[in-house]
Amino acid sequence: MTTRRRKHWGWGYEDEQPSTDEVRATAGAIVDVLGMGSTDVEEPAPLPELPAPRVAPPPGPLAAVWDTTAHARATHAWGRSYQDVVRGFRGDFAHAPDGVLRPQDEREVELALEWCSSAGVVCVPFGGGTSVVGGVTPRGIDGPVASLDLGALDRVLEVDQVSRAARIQAGVFGPALEAQLSDHGMTLRHFPQSFELSTLGGWIATRAGGHFATVETHIDDLVESVRAVTPSGVWESRRLPGSGAGPSPDRMLLGSEGTLGVITEAWVRVRPRPTFKRSAGVTFDSFMRGAEAVRALSQSGLHPSNCRLIDPVEAGFTGTGDGSAAVLVLGFESADHDVGPWMDRALEIAREHGGEAEEREDVVGTWRGAFLRAPYLRDTFVAIGILSETFETAITWDRFPSFHEQVLGSVREAAGERALVSCRFTHVYPDGPAPYYTVLAPARRGEEVEQWAEIKTAAGDALNAAGGTITHHHAVGRDHRPWYDRQRPDPFAAALRAAKRELDPAGILNPGVLVDP
Amino acid sequence: MTTRRRKHWGWGYEDEQPSTDEVRATAGAIVDVLGMGSTDVEEPAPLPELPAPRVAPPPGPLAAVWDTTAHARATHAWGRSYQDVVRGFRGDFAHAPDGVLRPQDEREVELALEWCSSAGVVCVPFGGGTSVVGGVTPRGIDGPVASLDLGALDRVLEVDQVSRAARIQAGVFGPALEAQLSDHGMTLRHFPQSFELSTLGGWIATRAGGHFATVETHIDDLVESVRAVTPSGVWESRRLPGSGAGPSPDRMLLGSEGTLGVITEAWVRVRPRPTFKRSAGVTFDSFMRGAEAVRALSQSGLHPSNCRLIDPVEAGFTGTGDGSAAVLVLGFESADHDVGPWMDRALEIAREHGGEAEEREDVVGTWRGAFLRAPYLRDTFVAIGILSETFETAITWDRFPSFHEQVLGSVREAAGERALVSCRFTHVYPDGPAPYYTVLAPARRGEEVEQWAEIKTAAGDALNAAGGTITHHHAVGRDHRPWYDRQRPDPFAAALRAAKRELDPAGILNPGVLVDP
Repeated sequence: MTTRRRKHWGWGYEDEQPSTDEVRATAGAIVDVLGMGSTDVEEPAPLPELPAPRVAPPPGPLAAVWDTTAHARATHAWGRSYQDVVRGFRGDFAHAPDGVLRPQDEREVELALEWCSSAGVVCVPFGGGTSVVGGVTPRGIDGPVASLDLGALDRVLEVDQVSRAARIQAGVFGPALEAQLSDHGMTLRHFPQSFELSTLGGWIATRAGGHFATVETHIDDLVESVRAVTPSGVWESRRLPGSGAGPSPDRMLLGSEGTLGVITEAWVRVRPRPTFKRSAGVTFDSFMRGAEAVRALSQSGLHPSNCRLIDPVEAGFTGTGDGSAAVLVLGFESADHDVGPWMDRALEIAREHGGEAEEREDVVGTWRGAFLRAPYLRDTFVAIGILSETFETAITWDRFPSFHEQVLGSVREAAGERALVSCRFTHVYPDGPAPYYTVLAPARRGEEVEQWAEIKTAAGDALNAAGGTITHHHAVGRDHRPWYDRQRPDPFAAALRAAKRELDPAGILNPGVLVDP
Repeated sequence: MTTRRRKHWGWGYEDEQPSTDEVRATAGAIVDVLGMGSTDVEEPAPLPELPAPRVAPPPGPLAAVWDTTAHARATHAWGRSYQDVVRGFRGDFAHAPDGVLRPQDEREVELALEWCSSAGVVCVPFGGGTSVVGGVTPRGIDGPVASLDLGALDRVLEVDQVSRAARIQAGVFGPALEAQLSDHGMTLRHFPQSFELSTLGGWIATRAGGHFATVETHIDDLVESVRAVTPSGVWESRRLPGSGAGPSPDRMLLGSEGTLGVITEAWVRVRPRPTFKRSAGVTFDSFMRGAEAVRALSQSGLHPSNCRLIDPVEAGFTGTGDGSAAVLVLGFESADHDVGPWMDRALEIAREHGGEAEEREDVVGTWRGAFLRAPYLRDTFVAIGILSETFETAITWDRFPSFHEQVLGSVREAAGERALVSCRFTHVYPDGPAPYYTVLAPARRGEEVEQWAEIKTAAGDALNAAGGTITHHHAVGRDHRPWYDRQRPDPFAAALRAAKRELDPAGILNPGVLVDP
């Protein structure tokens, strides 16, 4: 067992936080690359005292797993969006939950829901707390709140080598999940950017996007069955490779974001580690030329595992390219066969669309490094006065060019002329891409949250008006509600509300997320 | 416009029904091959007179599309399962709907639901009426019933060549859909066995299984967005290639079987016709050796479009093999690239598992012919005293061998020692196959329905007890309810009931299917 403590306001562990001098040194380099930020480094506020819990400790075995320390409550008060980190950095934890419940097994999850339902305590299911959409943030709630931290449910329980599936507890973090699977020669290969600090249950509850750029884009596609505890009983689907028996029960839990029940375990599809790999970087004059190539690739049936198109701006500041060209990071992998013919045809397609291809491992490595550093960098940005926001969506190919123009225009206007707004495709489908936008701008220090809200609103309005989805894999949470409410079919919203009332009659589960009562 | 009339009791059109002499000649051949059946050919009962409709014609524009002729009511009284055909063949139409509504546009669908809701008329949405699970059969309903036939909504409305998607009305039949797409150089390539007489809306409502043996196995995977009319308003999802905004609205309509709303149109993913094709037949000593090869293929990431494993019995009576060996029909197709490397590796895997491979087109053709003839043959079987029943499921690979043994054992016991029970895989997944069973037995003439029910019960009980799903792509309807009710998670059933009450407060939509009020 580790005794490392998580930072109470940002990404990662306390022992990973660089010193002020180190941050200042980094700031110098960042100012050079981005043309924004300051070596005037702000230090995070210390963990404040929190108001006394508004509820007495729970009865029975739950009393032993009820944690009301300030550190526990503060680390469960926010997710890890830019606005969350800013607020935590400044010591804003007034709305922190009254306590954190850490059930040691599923029976204690049931007890927790019973206690919350009968005592009128709001329950916020909590995996790794990496939400960037306010999914675990109990703000604006009257009355006591318990955060339900699934971290003790961290085991791979069973591995079925024949069917290539594993039964895994919901609270396990990405690296521990992979380490346990690795003992069986298997891997899930679901690597969201939050991988290090997010959990299987969180991925399922939020329909997380992962490693595979095509076909198996979301965790949805890797789920065989789900088990969840609801206030009205245990919800467990059968282990089935496929079914056509009514609407899929799993697809109703996928994306339910803690509003219908608490996911405790799942059977997921695993596989041996790939032994055949081919990677290439392909450069294009422009993002739009690259997009045409990616459209052809997505419609080719080649199913690349990696197919990330990065615009010139983002290629520049991530070091994936020199900033003059768009870069396509292309990869195929298999544990069964040489993927040479796949890559050969993919490169042919890329060249037919004006791409200049180079097969090299380092482009993947450079990209992966930048990808994994991003959450850490967000903390540094806050300290040195850079606003950073990301948002992502999906849109069909026919509308993509004008969609992209509208979104860029609106966001640039909101973010100011010194802002950098960049785009990449994280996942692609035969009928359209999932574009992911990054906004970096000089922060109005002390007003970052207002500034962030202006950009978020401009982005949400633009995505919504131009026909996109408010999220492809970040989820809805509380931050995306205004646009989600406009996007979803009204009768579906009514059906979802009715389902929630039925399963959670006391309305304790993550109120404010997805639907109102 | 055709003036051909559908047979009121069986598959296809009246002008396709062979004469008694022709059926007798066919019977001779069938007796030789199957060792059952009789040249004592029974003739179908004529269309009887039906009881007068229990409801006055609907008001306004609906009056013009309200059809109370005996032929209309009889062709909307049953689906096309064996028991349905037997009952129709014998002239049993006492429970036929009181009339058939044929809305000419979506507005008339809305009017129909308004009328049914206010007048207390049960509404059974009807596409092609090919259900084999009692999905369109209004038996056991108190009060008047209207069948809502979507046949007039039969157009491809829009084709997006860039995103490769098309907006198509729900009532279009398979061949008309493909003919219209073909004008745009596109194809949906969704070919369920019912293709000739089933509709896009029916496929979506029942999660139909199609052409592709891997990846895009169900219509679910080809749907981009769905539009449906519910008694509480229009449900329309956005056109999105992917989304992570809450539970998928489309996945709630997929499989809803007419209980939540009436699907009126959908955007679906289309593609150019494949220009590169490779096909092969591979024989195996035994079905289980073939299954091991198919497991390896399904886990290889090669994604064959065809991967049907047929056991020796079924290979024998369909002419796909000589009856001594299991036959794997394997195929790859692409509109983009030569699929040679794919097929080469697939055949290597098949050989590693003891398969003897032969690349030939005819095995595919032979199989396809038998596949498409089957619904016609069912009518003949009824006339010559052969019981035929099919049921299908899915199960993970680890459990498949014992599952198969249990299911075969139970069904053989129920069907009697002269019965033929065969199996094939229709679709395969990395974690398991979708086995499809066919039962042929000498019919107890005059008691076929009871005999069928005994076999159906034995099959359902065995599937359920051994962990399978009661259906992989035939749907639940009324016939599968007992096992569906045991299979689905209880809280999910409660959520679905609550959703239905919310959307269909008068409870008019297809009662008895999926859930009770």
